[in-house]
Amino acid sequence: MKLYDMELSGNCYKIRLFCSLSGVNYESIPVDLMKGEHKQAAFLALNPRGQVPVLDDAGTVVWDSMAILVYLARKYGGERWLPTEAETMARVMQWLALSENEILYGLARARAVTKFNRPWDLAQCQDLGRSGLGVMENHLEKNRWLAADHPTIADIACYPYVALAPEGGVVLDEFPHIGQWIARIRSLPGYVGMPGL
Amino acid sequence: MKLYDMELSGNCYKIRLFCSLSGVNYESIPVDLMKGEHKQAAFLALNPRGQVPVLDDAGTVVWDSMAILVYLARKYGGERWLPTEAETMARVMQWLALSENEILYGLARARAVTKFNRPWDLAQCQDLGRSGLGVMENHLEKNRWLAADHPTIADIACYPYVALAPEGGVVLDEFPHIGQWIARIRSLPGYVGMPGL
Repeated sequence: MKLYDMELSGNCYKIRLFCSLSGVNYESIPVDLMKGEHKQAAFLALNPRGQVPVLDDAGTVVWDSMAILVYLARKYGGERWLPTEAETMARVMQWLALSENEILYGLARARAVTKFNRPWDLAQCQDLGRSGLGVMENHLEKNRWLAADHPTIADIACYPYVALAPEGGVVLDEFPHIGQWIARIRSLPGYVGMPGL
Repeated sequence: MKLYDMELSGNCYKIRLFCSLSGVNYESIPVDLMKGEHKQAAFLALNPRGQVPVLDDAGTVVWDSMAILVYLARKYGGERWLPTEAETMARVMQWLALSENEILYGLARARAVTKFNRPWDLAQCQDLGRSGLGVMENHLEKNRWLAADHPTIADIACYPYVALAPEGGVVLDEFPHIGQWIARIRSLPGYVGMPGL
Protein backbone atom coordinates (compact mmCIF):
# COMPACT_ATOMS: atom_id res chain seq x y z
CA MET A 1 0.00 0.00 0.00
CA LYS A 2 1.39 3.38 -1.05
CA LEU A 3 0.61 6.70 0.60
CA TYR A 4 1.36 9.81 -1.45
CA ASP A 5 2.46 11.91 1.42
CA MET A 6 3.80 15.25 2.64
CA GLU A 7 5.40 15.52 6.06
CA LEU A 8 3.97 18.91 7.09
CA SER A 9 0.42 18.17 5.93
CA GLY A 10 -2.02 17.52 8.75
CA ASN A 11 -4.29 15.72 6.29
CA CYS A 12 -1.50 13.26 5.38
CA TYR A 13 -0.65 12.87 9.05
CA LYS A 14 -4.21 11.67 9.74
CA ILE A 15 -3.51 8.64 7.54
CA ARG A 16 -0.06 7.99 9.02
CA LEU A 17 -1.56 8.18 12.51
CA PHE A 18 -4.41 5.79 11.65
CA CYS A 19 -1.98 3.26 10.16
CA SER A 20 0.33 3.47 13.13
CA LEU A 21 -2.49 3.11 15.69
CA SER A 22 -4.06 0.18 13.87
CA GLY A 23 -0.93 -1.62 12.69
CA VAL A 24 -1.44 -1.16 8.94
CA ASN A 25 1.78 -1.10 6.92
CA TYR A 26 2.34 1.29 4.02
CA GLU A 27 5.08 2.86 1.94
CA SER A 28 5.31 6.65 2.11
CA ILE A 29 5.86 8.32 -1.29
CA PRO A 30 6.82 11.97 -0.68
CA VAL A 31 5.17 14.49 -3.01
CA ASP A 32 7.12 17.73 -3.41
CA LEU A 33 4.47 20.44 -3.18
CA MET A 34 7.08 23.20 -3.27
CA LYS A 35 8.10 22.01 -6.74
CA GLY A 36 4.42 21.74 -7.80
CA GLU A 37 4.57 17.96 -8.22
CA HIS A 38 0.90 17.73 -7.13
CA LYS A 39 -0.20 19.80 -10.15
CA GLN A 40 1.62 17.69 -12.74
CA ALA A 41 -0.11 15.20 -15.02
CA ALA A 42 1.21 12.05 -13.33
CA PHE A 43 -0.19 13.11 -9.97
CA LEU A 44 -3.43 14.57 -11.36
CA ALA A 45 -4.09 11.15 -12.90
CA LEU A 46 -4.17 9.80 -9.33
CA ASN A 47 -6.09 12.72 -7.84
CA PRO A 48 -7.80 15.25 -10.10
CA ARG A 49 -8.00 17.67 -7.16
CA GLY A 50 -4.19 17.87 -7.06
CA GLN A 51 -3.95 17.33 -3.31
CA VAL A 52 -2.21 14.99 -0.90
CA PRO A 53 -2.88 12.49 0.60
CA VAL A 54 -3.69 9.80 -1.97
CA LEU A 55 -3.77 6.10 -1.14
CA ASP A 56 -2.97 3.33 -3.62
CA ASP A 57 -3.95 -0.03 -2.15
CA ALA A 58 -2.88 -2.59 -4.78
CA GLY A 59 -4.43 -0.49 -7.53
CA THR A 60 -7.44 0.82 -5.61
CA VAL A 61 -6.73 4.56 -5.60
CA VAL A 62 -8.54 6.74 -3.05
CA TRP A 63 -8.11 10.50 -2.69
CA ASP A 64 -9.18 12.79 0.17
CA SER A 65 -8.15 12.22 3.78
CA MET A 66 -11.72 11.65 4.98
CA ALA A 67 -12.40 9.10 2.27
CA ILE A 68 -9.08 7.34 2.93
CA LEU A 69 -9.82 7.09 6.66
CA VAL A 70 -13.23 5.57 5.88
CA TYR A 71 -11.64 3.16 3.39
CA LEU A 72 -8.96 1.97 5.81
CA ALA A 73 -11.38 1.74 8.73
CA ARG A 74 -13.85 -0.35 6.71
CA LYS A 75 -11.19 -2.54 5.13
CA TYR A 76 -8.79 -3.09 8.03
CA GLY A 77 -10.56 -1.90 11.18
CA GLY A 78 -13.63 -4.09 11.55
CA GLU A 79 -16.24 -2.21 13.61
CA ARG A 80 -13.68 -0.49 15.82
CA TRP A 81 -12.78 2.71 14.01
CA LEU A 82 -16.00 3.25 12.05
CA PRO A 83 -19.00 1.37 13.48
CA THR A 84 -21.69 0.70 10.86
CA GLU A 85 -24.75 0.93 13.14
CA ALA A 86 -26.74 3.98 11.97
CA GLU A 87 -26.56 6.22 15.02
CA THR A 88 -22.91 5.55 15.86
CA MET A 89 -21.84 6.03 12.25
CA ALA A 90 -23.77 9.31 12.21
CA ARG A 91 -21.92 10.42 15.36
CA VAL A 92 -18.60 9.73 13.60
CA MET A 93 -19.83 11.69 10.58
CA GLN A 94 -20.84 14.71 12.68
CA TRP A 95 -17.24 15.14 13.79
CA LEU A 96 -15.83 14.34 10.36
CA ALA A 97 -18.06 17.20 9.16
CA LEU A 98 -16.61 19.47 11.84
CA SER A 99 -13.12 18.43 10.72
CA GLU A 100 -13.96 19.42 7.12
CA ASN A 101 -15.58 22.72 8.10
CA GLU A 102 -14.64 24.67 11.25
CA ILE A 103 -11.35 22.79 11.63
CA LEU A 104 -10.18 22.78 8.00
CA TYR A 105 -11.54 26.16 6.86
CA GLY A 106 -10.91 27.71 10.28
CA LEU A 107 -7.89 26.28 12.10
CA ALA A 108 -5.99 24.70 9.20
CA ARG A 109 -6.47 27.76 6.99
CA ALA A 110 -5.32 30.07 9.80
CA ARG A 111 -2.18 27.93 10.11
CA ALA A 112 -1.69 28.03 6.32
CA VAL A 113 -1.92 31.85 6.38
CA THR A 114 0.66 32.26 9.13
CA LYS A 115 2.95 29.39 8.13
CA PHE A 116 2.69 29.20 4.33
CA ASN A 117 1.56 32.76 3.52
CA ARG A 118 -1.75 31.70 1.95
CA PRO A 119 -4.20 34.46 0.93
CA TRP A 120 -7.13 33.95 3.31
CA ASP A 121 -8.57 36.33 5.93
CA LEU A 122 -6.77 35.32 9.12
CA ALA A 123 -9.30 36.75 11.61
CA GLN A 124 -12.25 35.13 9.79
CA CYS A 125 -10.45 31.77 9.81
CA GLN A 126 -9.53 32.05 13.49
CA ASP A 127 -13.13 32.94 14.44
CA LEU A 128 -14.52 29.98 12.52
CA GLY A 129 -11.92 27.73 14.12
CA ARG A 130 -12.74 28.92 17.64
CA SER A 131 -16.45 28.25 17.07
CA GLY A 132 -15.59 24.64 16.23
CA LEU A 133 -13.34 24.36 19.29
CA GLY A 134 -16.23 25.58 21.45
CA VAL A 135 -18.47 22.79 20.16
CA MET A 136 -15.74 20.21 20.82
CA GLU A 137 -14.96 21.58 24.29
CA ASN A 138 -18.59 21.29 25.39
CA HIS A 139 -18.77 17.73 24.11
CA LEU A 140 -15.47 16.66 25.67
CA GLU A 141 -16.51 18.06 29.04
CA LYS A 142 -18.87 15.08 29.27
CA ASN A 143 -17.23 12.53 26.96
CA ARG A 144 -13.76 11.04 26.66
CA TRP A 145 -13.91 10.57 22.88
CA LEU A 146 -15.84 12.33 20.12
CA ALA A 147 -18.17 9.72 18.66
CA ALA A 148 -18.18 6.60 20.86
CA ASP A 149 -16.79 5.31 24.15
CA HIS A 150 -13.54 4.52 22.37
CA PRO A 151 -11.45 6.35 19.76
CA THR A 152 -12.74 6.33 16.17
CA ILE A 153 -11.66 7.98 12.92
CA ALA A 154 -13.57 11.05 14.18
CA ASP A 155 -10.85 11.63 16.78
CA ILE A 156 -8.09 11.00 14.24
CA ALA A 157 -9.65 13.41 11.71
CA CYS A 158 -10.09 16.24 14.22
CA TYR A 159 -6.83 15.84 16.11
CA PRO A 160 -4.08 17.20 13.81
CA TYR A 161 -5.34 20.70 13.03
CA VAL A 162 -6.82 21.12 16.52
CA ALA A 163 -3.48 20.27 18.13
CA LEU A 164 -1.67 22.49 15.57
CA ALA A 165 -4.07 25.42 16.17
CA PRO A 166 -1.44 27.49 18.04
CA GLU A 167 0.62 27.56 14.79
CA GLY A 168 -2.30 29.57 13.35
CA GLY A 169 -2.49 31.92 16.32
CA VAL A 170 -5.36 30.14 18.10
CA VAL A 171 -4.35 29.31 21.67
CA LEU A 172 -5.92 26.31 23.35
CA ASP A 173 -5.65 27.48 26.98
CA GLU A 174 -9.37 28.27 27.22
CA PHE A 175 -10.29 24.75 26.08
CA PRO A 176 -9.04 22.53 28.94
CA HIS A 177 -11.09 19.46 27.99
CA ILE A 178 -9.68 19.57 24.49
CA GLY A 179 -6.25 19.64 26.13
CA GLN A 180 -7.06 16.47 28.07
CA TRP A 181 -8.41 14.79 24.92
CA ILE A 182 -5.16 15.67 23.10
CA ALA A 183 -3.23 14.04 25.96
CA ARG A 184 -5.43 10.91 25.69
CA ILE A 185 -4.72 10.64 21.98
CA ARG A 186 -0.98 11.04 22.58
CA SER A 187 -1.05 8.16 25.06
CA LEU A 188 -2.71 5.67 22.68
CA PRO A 189 -0.52 2.62 21.91
CA GLY A 190 1.15 3.14 18.54
CA TYR A 191 0.82 6.94 18.59
CA VAL A 192 3.21 8.82 16.28
CA GLY A 193 3.64 12.58 16.02
CA MET A 194 4.41 14.98 13.20
CA PRO A 195 6.52 18.16 13.04
CA GLY A 196 4.93 20.63 15.48
CA LEU A 197 3.24 17.90 17.54
CA MET B 1 -39.32 12.12 12.63
CA LYS B 2 -38.78 15.89 12.79
CA LEU B 3 -36.58 17.91 10.46
CA TYR B 4 -35.57 21.36 11.69
CA ASP B 5 -35.68 22.99 8.33
CA MET B 6 -35.27 26.16 6.28
CA GLU B 7 -36.73 26.37 2.80
CA LEU B 8 -33.90 28.28 1.10
CA SER B 9 -31.10 26.18 2.62
CA GLY B 10 -29.48 23.78 0.19
CA ASN B 11 -28.23 21.72 3.15
CA CYS B 12 -31.80 21.25 4.42
CA TYR B 13 -32.97 20.49 0.90
CA LYS B 14 -30.51 17.56 0.74
CA ILE B 15 -32.48 15.88 3.52
CA ARG B 16 -35.88 16.69 2.03
CA LEU B 17 -34.70 15.28 -1.30
CA PHE B 18 -33.35 12.08 0.27
CA CYS B 19 -36.60 11.51 2.16
CA SER B 20 -38.70 12.12 -0.93
CA LEU B 21 -36.57 9.83 -3.14
CA SER B 22 -36.55 7.03 -0.60
CA GLY B 23 -40.08 7.34 0.78
CA VAL B 24 -39.16 8.33 4.34
CA ASN B 25 -41.83 10.46 6.09
CA TYR B 26 -40.94 13.42 8.30
CA GLU B 27 -42.43 16.56 9.76
CA SER B 28 -40.78 19.82 8.71
CA ILE B 29 -40.21 22.29 11.57
CA PRO B 30 -39.30 25.68 10.07
CA VAL B 31 -36.48 27.53 11.84
CA ASP B 32 -36.57 31.31 11.35
CA LEU B 33 -32.93 32.21 10.65
CA MET B 34 -33.84 35.84 9.93
CA LYS B 35 -35.10 36.14 13.52
CA GLY B 36 -31.98 34.36 14.85
CA GLU B 37 -33.93 31.37 16.12
CA HIS B 38 -30.93 29.12 15.35
CA LYS B 39 -28.77 31.01 17.86
CA GLN B 40 -31.24 30.75 20.76
CA ALA B 41 -30.79 28.34 23.66
CA ALA B 42 -33.59 25.94 22.69
CA PHE B 43 -32.08 25.37 19.26
CA LEU B 44 -28.46 25.32 20.47
CA ALA B 45 -29.46 22.49 22.81
CA LEU B 46 -30.29 20.48 19.68
CA ASN B 47 -27.28 21.64 17.67
CA PRO B 48 -24.41 23.45 19.38
CA ARG B 49 -23.22 24.68 15.97
CA GLY B 50 -26.43 26.70 15.60
CA GLN B 51 -27.15 25.49 12.07
CA VAL B 52 -29.95 23.82 10.15
CA PRO B 53 -30.68 21.04 9.33
CA VAL B 54 -31.15 18.99 12.50
CA LEU B 55 -32.96 15.66 12.57
CA ASP B 56 -34.86 14.31 15.57
CA ASP B 57 -35.75 10.66 14.99
CA ALA B 58 -37.77 9.66 18.08
CA GLY B 59 -35.21 11.31 20.36
CA THR B 60 -32.08 10.47 18.38
CA VAL B 61 -30.85 13.95 17.44
CA VAL B 62 -28.38 14.28 14.57
CA TRP B 63 -26.93 17.58 13.33
CA ASP B 64 -25.06 18.29 10.08
CA SER B 65 -26.45 17.48 6.64
CA MET B 66 -23.70 14.96 5.82
CA ALA B 67 -24.19 13.12 9.11
CA ILE B 68 -27.99 13.13 8.67
CA LEU B 69 -27.69 11.69 5.15
CA VAL B 70 -25.43 8.92 6.49
CA TYR B 71 -27.83 8.25 9.36
CA LEU B 72 -30.90 8.01 7.12
CA ALA B 73 -29.10 5.93 4.50
CA ARG B 74 -27.87 3.45 7.10
CA LYS B 75 -31.15 3.29 8.98
CA TYR B 76 -33.69 3.32 6.14
CA GLY B 77 -31.76 2.72 2.92
CA GLY B 78 -30.18 -0.73 3.27
CA GLU B 79 -27.14 -0.90 0.99
CA ARG B 80 -28.65 1.27 -1.72
CA TRP B 81 -27.75 4.83 -0.77
CA LEU B 82 -24.55 4.14 1.21
CA PRO B 83 -22.96 0.78 0.45
CA THR B 84 -20.79 -0.49 3.32
CA GLU B 85 -18.16 -2.33 1.25
CA ALA B 86 -14.86 -0.50 1.79
CA GLU B 87 -14.11 0.77 -1.71
CA THR B 88 -17.66 1.80 -2.59
CA MET B 89 -18.13 3.57 0.73
CA ALA B 90 -14.84 5.39 0.13
CA ARG B 91 -16.10 6.48 -3.32
CA VAL B 92 -19.20 7.95 -1.65
CA MET B 93 -16.99 9.70 0.91
CA GLN B 94 -14.76 11.24 -1.78
CA TRP B 95 -17.74 13.10 -3.18
CA LEU B 96 -19.14 13.94 0.25
CA ALA B 97 -15.73 15.52 0.88
CA LEU B 98 -16.04 17.51 -2.35
CA SER B 99 -19.51 18.62 -1.23
CA GLU B 100 -18.07 19.88 2.07
CA ASN B 101 -15.11 21.62 0.46
CA GLU B 102 -15.16 22.98 -3.11
CA ILE B 103 -18.96 22.94 -3.25
CA LEU B 104 -19.76 24.34 0.21
CA TYR B 105 -16.85 26.78 0.61
CA GLY B 106 -16.85 27.57 -3.11
CA LEU B 107 -20.28 27.45 -4.74
CA ALA B 108 -22.51 27.74 -1.67
CA ARG B 109 -20.48 30.59 -0.22
CA ALA B 110 -20.51 32.43 -3.57
CA ARG B 111 -24.32 32.11 -3.55
CA ALA B 112 -24.45 33.32 0.07
CA VAL B 113 -22.38 36.39 -0.86
CA THR B 114 -24.59 37.37 -3.80
CA LYS B 115 -27.93 36.31 -2.31
CA PHE B 116 -27.57 36.92 1.44
CA ASN B 117 -24.78 39.54 1.46
CA ARG B 118 -22.34 37.39 3.46
CA PRO B 119 -18.79 38.75 3.96
CA TRP B 120 -16.63 36.32 1.95
CA ASP B 121 -14.37 36.99 -1.04
CA LEU B 122 -16.63 36.28 -4.03
CA ALA B 123 -13.89 35.66 -6.62
CA GLN B 124 -12.01 33.26 -4.28
CA CYS B 125 -15.22 31.33 -3.65
CA GLN B 126 -16.10 31.15 -7.34
CA ASP B 127 -12.60 29.92 -8.23
CA LEU B 128 -12.73 27.19 -5.59
CA GLY B 129 -16.21 26.21 -6.77
CA ARG B 130 -15.11 25.98 -10.41
CA SER B 131 -12.18 23.72 -9.46
CA GLY B 132 -14.67 21.32 -7.88
CA LEU B 133 -16.94 21.47 -10.92
CA GLY B 134 -13.96 20.58 -13.11
CA VAL B 135 -13.31 17.43 -11.07
CA MET B 136 -16.99 16.46 -11.27
CA GLU B 137 -17.21 17.18 -15.01
CA ASN B 138 -14.26 14.89 -15.78
CA HIS B 139 -15.77 12.12 -13.70
CA LEU B 140 -19.27 12.48 -15.17
CA GLU B 141 -17.88 12.36 -18.69
CA LYS B 142 -17.31 8.64 -18.08
CA ASN B 143 -19.85 7.84 -15.34
CA ARG B 144 -23.59 8.39 -14.93
CA TRP B 145 -23.43 8.80 -11.14
CA LEU B 146 -20.73 9.96 -8.77
CA ALA B 147 -19.91 6.97 -6.57
CA ALA B 148 -21.56 3.84 -7.98
CA ASP B 149 -23.61 2.65 -10.97
CA HIS B 150 -26.71 4.02 -9.26
CA PRO B 151 -27.47 7.20 -7.27
CA THR B 152 -26.12 7.38 -3.72
CA ILE B 153 -26.05 10.06 -1.02
CA ALA B 154 -22.96 11.40 -2.83
CA ASP B 155 -25.21 12.61 -5.66
CA ILE B 156 -27.75 14.03 -3.22
CA ALA B 157 -25.06 15.88 -1.24
CA CYS B 158 -23.44 17.45 -4.30
CA TYR B 159 -26.58 18.28 -6.26
CA PRO B 160 -28.16 21.32 -4.51
CA TYR B 161 -25.29 23.81 -4.50
CA VAL B 162 -24.02 22.62 -7.88
CA ALA B 163 -27.43 23.16 -9.46
CA LEU B 164 -27.76 26.50 -7.61
CA ALA B 165 -24.27 27.65 -8.73
CA PRO B 166 -25.65 30.24 -11.19
CA GLU B 167 -27.20 32.08 -8.20
CA GLY B 168 -23.60 32.66 -7.06
CA GLY B 169 -22.46 33.83 -10.49
CA VAL B 170 -20.95 30.52 -11.61
CA VAL B 171 -22.45 29.49 -14.95
CA LEU B 172 -22.67 25.81 -15.77
CA ASP B 173 -22.55 26.07 -19.59
CA GLU B 174 -18.95 24.85 -19.75
CA PHE B 175 -19.81 21.71 -17.79
CA PRO B 176 -22.16 19.80 -20.11
CA HIS B 177 -21.83 16.44 -18.36
CA ILE B 178 -22.80 18.04 -15.07
CA GLY B 179 -25.84 19.40 -16.90
CA GLN B 180 -26.81 15.89 -17.98
CA TRP B 181 -26.27 14.56 -14.44
CA ILE B 182 -28.55 17.32 -13.09
CA ALA B 183 -31.20 16.23 -15.60
CA ARG B 184 -30.82 12.60 -14.49
CA ILE B 185 -31.34 13.57 -10.85
CA ARG B 186 -34.44 15.61 -11.76
CA SER B 187 -35.94 12.59 -13.50
CA LEU B 188 -35.57 10.23 -10.50
CA PRO B 189 -38.92 8.93 -9.18
CA GLY B 190 -39.90 10.98 -6.14
CA TYR B 191 -37.75 13.99 -7.06
CA VAL B 192 -38.76 17.28 -5.42
CA GLY B 193 -37.27 20.73 -6.07
CA MET B 194 -36.58 23.77 -3.93
CA PRO B 195 -36.84 27.52 -4.67
CA GLY B 196 -34.40 28.21 -7.50
CA LEU B 197 -34.41 24.62 -8.76
